[in-house]
Amino acid sequence: MEPRILDAISAPEDLKVLTYPELSILAQEIREEIVSTCAENGGHIASSLGAVEIVLAAHRVLNCPHDKLVFDVGHQAYAHKLVTGRRSQFPTLRTYGGLSGFTKPEESPYDAHPSGHASDSLSVAAGYAKAAQLNGSNEKVVAVIGDASLSGGMAFEALNYIGQAQLPMVIILNDNMMSISRNVGALMKHLGNMRADNRYRKLRDAAQEELEASGVLGKILLDLGKRAKESAKQFFLASSMIFESLGITCTAPIDGHNIRELEDTLRLVLQTEGPVLVHVVTKKGAGYAPAEQDPERFHGVGPFEVATGAAKPKKPAPPAFTTVFGQALLEEGRADDAVVAITAAMEGGTGLKPFAEQFPERFIDVGIAEENAVGLASGLAFAGKKPVVAIYSTFLQRSFDQIVVDCALSQANVVLAIDRAGLVGEDGATHHGAFDLVYMRTVPHMRVLAPADEADLVNALHTALALPGPVSLRYPRGNGMGVSVPEVPQMLEVGKSRLMREGSDACVLAFGPVAYRAMEAAEMLAEEGIDVRVVDMLWAKPLDKEAVLAAAETGCVITAEEGAMVGGCGEGVIEVLAQHRAQCSVTTLALPDRFVRHGSVPQLLHEVGLDAEGIAESVRNAFLQ
Amino acid sequence: MEPRILDAISAPEDLKVLTYPELSILAQEIREEIVSTCAENGGHIASSLGAVEIVLAAHRVLNCPHDKLVFDVGHQAYAHKLVTGRRSQFPTLRTYGGLSGFTKPEESPYDAHPSGHASDSLSVAAGYAKAAQLNGSNEKVVAVIGDASLSGGMAFEALNYIGQAQLPMVIILNDNMMSISRNVGALMKHLGNMRADNRYRKLRDAAQEELEASGVLGKILLDLGKRAKESAKQFFLASSMIFESLGITCTAPIDGHNIRELEDTLRLVLQTEGPVLVHVVTKKGAGYAPAEQDPERFHGVGPFEVATGAAKPKKPAPPAFTTVFGQALLEEGRADDAVVAITAAMEGGTGLKPFAEQFPERFIDVGIAEENAVGLASGLAFAGKKPVVAIYSTFLQRSFDQIVVDCALSQANVVLAIDRAGLVGEDGATHHGAFDLVYMRTVPHMRVLAPADEADLVNALHTALALPGPVSLRYPRGNGMGVSVPEVPQMLEVGKSRLMREGSDACVLAFGPVAYRAMEAAEMLAEEGIDVRVVDMLWAKPLDKEAVLAAAETGCVITAEEGAMVGGCGEGVIEVLAQHRAQCSVTTLALPDRFVRHGSVPQLLHEVGLDAEGIAESVRNAFLQ
Repeated sequence: MEPRILDAISAPEDLKVLTYPELSILAQEIREEIVSTCAENGGHIASSLGAVEIVLAAHRVLNCPHDKLVFDVGHQAYAHKLVTGRRSQFPTLRTYGGLSGFTKPEESPYDAHPSGHASDSLSVAAGYAKAAQLNGSNEKVVAVIGDASLSGGMAFEALNYIGQAQLPMVIILNDNMMSISRNVGALMKHLGNMRADNRYRKLRDAAQEELEASGVLGKILLDLGKRAKESAKQFFLASSMIFESLGITCTAPIDGHNIRELEDTLRLVLQTEGPVLVHVVTKKGAGYAPAEQDPERFHGVGPFEVATGAAKPKKPAPPAFTTVFGQALLEEGRADDAVVAITAAMEGGTGLKPFAEQFPERFIDVGIAEENAVGLASGLAFAGKKPVVAIYSTFLQRSFDQIVVDCALSQANVVLAIDRAGLVGEDGATHHGAFDLVYMRTVPHMRVLAPADEADLVNALHTALALPGPVSLRYPRGNGMGVSVPEVPQMLEVGKSRLMREGSDACVLAFGPVAYRAMEAAEMLAEEGIDVRVVDMLWAKPLDKEAVLAAAETGCVITAEEGAMVGGCGEGVIEVLAQHRAQCSVTTLALPDRFVRHGSVPQLLHEVGLDAEGIAESVRNAFLQ
Repeated sequence: MEPRILDAISAPEDLKVLTYPELSILAQEIREEIVSTCAENGGHIASSLGAVEIVLAAHRVLNCPHDKLVFDVGHQAYAHKLVTGRRSQFPTLRTYGGLSGFTKPEESPYDAHPSGHASDSLSVAAGYAKAAQLNGSNEKVVAVIGDASLSGGMAFEALNYIGQAQLPMVIILNDNMMSISRNVGALMKHLGNMRADNRYRKLRDAAQEELEASGVLGKILLDLGKRAKESAKQFFLASSMIFESLGITCTAPIDGHNIRELEDTLRLVLQTEGPVLVHVVTKKGAGYAPAEQDPERFHGVGPFEVATGAAKPKKPAPPAFTTVFGQALLEEGRADDAVVAITAAMEGGTGLKPFAEQFPERFIDVGIAEENAVGLASGLAFAGKKPVVAIYSTFLQRSFDQIVVDCALSQANVVLAIDRAGLVGEDGATHHGAFDLVYMRTVPHMRVLAPADEADLVNALHTALALPGPVSLRYPRGNGMGVSVPEVPQMLEVGKSRLMREGSDACVLAFGPVAYRAMEAAEMLAEEGIDVRVVDMLWAKPLDKEAVLAAAETGCVITAEEGAMVGGCGEGVIEVLAQHRAQCSVTTLALPDRFVRHGSVPQLLHEVGLDAEGIAESVRNAFLQ
């Protein structure tokens, strides 16, 4: 294997001596590295491929870590990792003990903040810029944010402040013409009279030619699709008006795959005094044909074959909870036309595609805008509809206030479908759904379901839609248990648990799919002569007090949940036991009171003691104590 | 007393038969009613006075409650209450058992949603509009939102959706040129080249003349102040560009005190198919000179003398917690120039005025933008500053995600100063600070202080600034305990409680100022021969486990906190007791698992059993059980 330029890059300084032809080769090498690593480990490949030149140009112009480069979400930052001393660790990306898929200050001084949640980069960068101003320092601050992240209210709040304070900072808008699932929001539309603008087409063509010439990893997709092109054109024009009216100078769009142009522009705007937005046009997945052709699929992807982009074959497994949910919602939507489905830029991720296709008029994707998603749902509910908001647990925490005020206070008939509840695996600390049980059970009038399997899930959704008032249901990322779903969904009795296994020595009260691991633990312990009862609690709120008190009669109660320990269901169970002065030991198994790192879900469950072995050990210890 | 037109108005229908001269008289009567009621009960007088004509015009044009009128915050809605059948109850405004100070569907079918938190009206209205569209109904939807509320990210998220979906709805932008404390954000600035525009001045003059002619309740303030005028001019032009680029048609500004003009405009725009924003210029406090002159003070005000606007004399009382906090922060800022203070449109309300005046460059008011406030703080902390974010408990819940991801995950040195924690009194359910203990204690790395008095508070702030990592401290609305503050603030030992009273029969573990009521309860019970220990826990996280286990030795533990029961400190205490299999009874006193209504704080404390009598009774029951 011939020597590679990338081998010589141990810090951003090393980039500064390269010629443009060398940089072009380096960009290729970086793309190959990203593609080959993600082909093994999965990852946010499309965004990172699109931002290679942005990263190289920024690091040539800046002097990091003295200067600050702040990535929104951080899934654009793989090239950044490769040129900031992490190249040798890069094959460990997103694996247990390896590099994070996002920026992480603990990992490198070049990572300016812990990224992962969209739309926060502008606030963080503004903090850096304000601090530099106060210090009279010459530190430069550059934020890199994608078009999709701009729909988040937090980003707008930050722009409003940045424009008012006239902070000296640069915002690179990485406009790749594609939100995670599809372009949503007026920001991306409604400038029809600007469609004739030719500058954009020229840019796109230039970018395409350059990539074709370099022919990096595959054939370039020539037809980008009408929708993407048009919406992008509309977008940059709409957005520049908005930025300018907020007091932020806005450049004409430049080619995000032309390092020299990027550098020249950055050098220029870094000399200005106030905030400047550099509008950069990139192609998501640039340089890898399969990702260019299906950037949505390659936004976040599992292991795949490099040559074709085809997903590597997985072991046969039951359908994912998300899929089961999506199918169940479709059926509910068929049965009742009051059902409206809402998501926040996660149509595919939350399993809503079948519903969206069948009932487009009753499907709403608000973009990355969780606060509006929940507020909108409350309005629909007040008007007699039955909105179902499907959002990942970790992102729904952006809507806590709306859940309290807009949903619960009026006992609105809003169903909150909380996907990715519990450990999510490779995306790690920012993405684990750790807190929803806490922030849901504390809300008055809120009912909280934690189905353990597919049948529970289908029935839970049905029940949530039928009950008055706000109801939430949580279910994890990953495959179901292989349990067949009921042909006709059943109404669950509120606050009634389901006995999974009888036993008299100890009792595990399980919230969610952890019940199945508790069952495995019970089988192991049965061989040791310990007879363990397992209860699928089903309801985190209201709790099945009878089941809790019955559990106490074994003398040994163990609660199990894939959610935060502090404020979680375990505490609720203990409270019931204390109220009744039950005489028994209690052990709470939950996510520890620290952030859990990334890795595969089985690895993480083992680490936190929530796999079958961990549960068995805890039950054994509790029983023998 | 001569008959009044208002006496004849029992529903909006009754407005439709009035002539314009009659409406003008009615507007006067309504203002008198608002002023006289607020003079007794306090209230959000300035906003409601400014919106009288908007309310009358909207109700003449609409057919509510079939049509929907959605108020942002709801503090503009007093006139709405007066014309929708609640006139006779109006003197009970904001009193225990009386009318709410915000819109509240339980109170009236004319109230479209439970308002109180800024920036949610557009989402709720969009929900109504979307439902009407799905139903093929002719229902009209109008939202009324003030300029200050537009800085909230949720409002932008909703605008982005409304523009994209082209929902048929009308947004009345009530531009009163004045955020709660002062205009913040670029939206209000930076269109210098538009300052020459004369339309705005003409409008303002016309509005002023009309009000002067009617001479309602006092002399009109002739000079509005340069700043307010200019920023308003800039604002309407900046904003119209933003709205138009989001696909929302925007009217030229109209006079918000001219009923006929308002009606004509509304009739016109209600016939259009897509969303329209009607830019309405009003004067906050219109028609009542003291409120016009000091709209900030009259935003939310306690009882006052009608003739002068002077606050009614209060009983002498110790300074408020907020005041003590503001002074302590000023001292900390003097001692360490790394301290930066941040608030979200609540400079006065959070006691930050002294700091802002002394250190303007280190004071940041981001406007109603809690997410950005916390994100910005994290950036400042990463850059070595010591940001202190002072926000009311109920509004800080908008930043839960930022607290988790931007602050706690990196253990950023951010201090979260949580004002109005616990029951706030007359503002009621939407404003009680019920959840902060729950949503703070569940966050890893977060330390949570609950000072019981002024000395605790000063020391808590000092400690929070000195400790590494995120620290929150909560304190209530209202007066302190009269405890003198330390001349030099002391460093508190982490997780160490303070014994307030020795006792052996029972032990109250109190979080926050409720400790003083527990002391009163202990004195009462001492006379009955029950010897109660009282502990000022000081730290909600980490808990003082030694104090908890020592409490268990009395055999009777009572926890007390002014925060939500579910997920609160009481559960945390019980968990410690269960871990150690302590043999004792436990009683948790906290806010019940329902929304607490409005009323005076003493009335509400009594209702929920957290006044001295309630605590005494609970302790007595627990001890005698």
